[in-house]
Amino acid sequence: MEIQDVFSAYKDDLHQVEKYINDNVHSEIKLIPEVAQHLINSGGKRFRPLLLLICARLCGYRDENRFPMATVMEFIHTATLLHDDVIDQASIRRGKTSANQIYGNAISILVGDFLCFKSYTLMTEIGNLDILRLISEMGDIMSEGEVFQLSKCGDINLSEEEYFNIIEKKTAVLISASCASGSILSSAPREKIDALKKFGRNVGMAFQITDDILDYMAKREDFGKSIGKDLEEGKITLPLIFAIKQSTIKEKNKIKEIITSKKNSKKVVREIFSLIEKYKGIDSSFQIASKYINKAKSQLNIFNDCPEKDHLNTVAEYILTRKA
Amino acid sequence: MEIQDVFSAYKDDLHQVEKYINDNVHSEIKLIPEVAQHLINSGGKRFRPLLLLICARLCGYRDENRFPMATVMEFIHTATLLHDDVIDQASIRRGKTSANQIYGNAISILVGDFLCFKSYTLMTEIGNLDILRLISEMGDIMSEGEVFQLSKCGDINLSEEEYFNIIEKKTAVLISASCASGSILSSAPREKIDALKKFGRNVGMAFQITDDILDYMAKREDFGKSIGKDLEEGKITLPLIFAIKQSTIKEKNKIKEIITSKKNSKKVVREIFSLIEKYKGIDSSFQIASKYINKAKSQLNIFNDCPEKDHLNTVAEYILTRKA
Repeated sequence: MEIQDVFSAYKDDLHQVEKYINDNVHSEIKLIPEVAQHLINSGGKRFRPLLLLICARLCGYRDENRFPMATVMEFIHTATLLHDDVIDQASIRRGKTSANQIYGNAISILVGDFLCFKSYTLMTEIGNLDILRLISEMGDIMSEGEVFQLSKCGDINLSEEEYFNIIEKKTAVLISASCASGSILSSAPREKIDALKKFGRNVGMAFQITDDILDYMAKREDFGKSIGKDLEEGKITLPLIFAIKQSTIKEKNKIKEIITSKKNSKKVVREIFSLIEKYKGIDSSFQIASKYINKAKSQLNIFNDCPEKDHLNTVAEYILTRKA
Repeated sequence: MEIQDVFSAYKDDLHQVEKYINDNVHSEIKLIPEVAQHLINSGGKRFRPLLLLICARLCGYRDENRFPMATVMEFIHTATLLHDDVIDQASIRRGKTSANQIYGNAISILVGDFLCFKSYTLMTEIGNLDILRLISEMGDIMSEGEVFQLSKCGDINLSEEEYFNIIEKKTAVLISASCASGSILSSAPREKIDALKKFGRNVGMAFQITDDILDYMAKREDFGKSIGKDLEEGKITLPLIFAIKQSTIKEKNKIKEIITSKKNSKKVVREIFSLIEKYKGIDSSFQIASKYINKAKSQLNIFNDCPEKDHLNTVAEYILTRKA
């Protein structure tokens, strides 16, 4: 089974989610849907809604509430992207000029806030306090992860453990919550909810690691972001951590100089690339991502074989093969 | 009765709220409580918590949940101030250097987000879906108000109606929700909740109008903000709207030139001041604020005479006499 087959199996459900998304970005202040849709319609894969829909169906849930709940996951994801782009002073997102560049920081912050509050309006309508608790705690952890990442910006002593802590908070908890809320909606037993929560957490870890790998590999046209963006922003990610760990003192000083200068010339990026290559930073990172995917898949053992279980396994494997 | 007497009557309650505030800004990421407390402990009056506590007591509510709920109102207020200061590129807040100046825009945005999600964690623990709905809808309206205000920045054709729309959204709904949630906690009958909602809305309108008046009057040491800050930011407020409405074409062009240039020299501010004075912009604005306070007080007619009703009347009257 390919990832396209999974998307096809949820085509109608995803279409319903798009309807909810469009209905709920509405505002009498026309600039709000304009800015929100600039990002929402910029080719995002609806990865978090998809996971939610699969997990809901896996647990036997077929009610309407899965659509607004999937919308919530996409809205909160979009809100964090809007805020992140202001924070990182980004100029490109998904291959398009980022919202902060077109509309300014102020509007990006406010539309992010709007989408967060709208998510809570939707969740209040769904009326499930367990989900409200999960998402609120998730939001705090995500903010903590972003602050922690900022505080470690440019720190070449960032440990693997600290890196894993950051990516768990900033990425994995949202993907974990997407899976968990699909099963909470269906009032699944505790062990199934926990299994899907862990499945999502491990998929999320692998997702961010492969994202960070792709930042050192991607061609702009494929991935919609420029190569070495993390490096430019002073973000130390796993491939570089592996390189730093094995570098000579001279190489370490060179890396430090490059990170501190924040100059992202082609020459400088090439120097970092060659060190990452020398110390097999990409391969080692990929192996870690693979381990997370195996851990994710093992969480599915408690479920009987069924199409939805295959869908989750396919999504998990896709994380390791994706080029975008 | 003076405003100090009201604060005294709720001294113990407000002390409990402070405890909740301190316990809930906690995070393993130390920078988060540091930034949050920089603003929270900068001399805010706890005006929104106070209103919530009075309204809860007025409706006979004495349970513990009023403290976390009052904390929510202060947290959301603080979050909006953190985001506003980034949006306005502010340098001073409550007479202190603003958080964005000390810690940077990124941290201010993220700590604002953290406080919002923490508010929802607290509300989920309280577990009242009516309050969750009220606050979520309020949040969306507040974001809409801020976006609308931004879109009208520097527009000297801003009408009174548009101004009232902006201040209702950006200020009055939060004060209204503070009053309403105090009564919702107590399961008060619909008409009492509605009356307190309207009381809060009208108090909030007057609050923002007097805030905008004080921006043209305040001395920095009294009010903790510089004079003419709104003017510098291109915010057209009620005193200036009255002046613009009556100005000659020549005066209007002068105002337009000043607003567009965004130069806030003493000379320029004095020119605007003298036009506002000439056309009684302050007096007319103050009259409107008084009307809102009268409307607010009339909402209390359905309540029997009691100390809490006196407290609300005293708070309402204080809005018109405050110098800070």
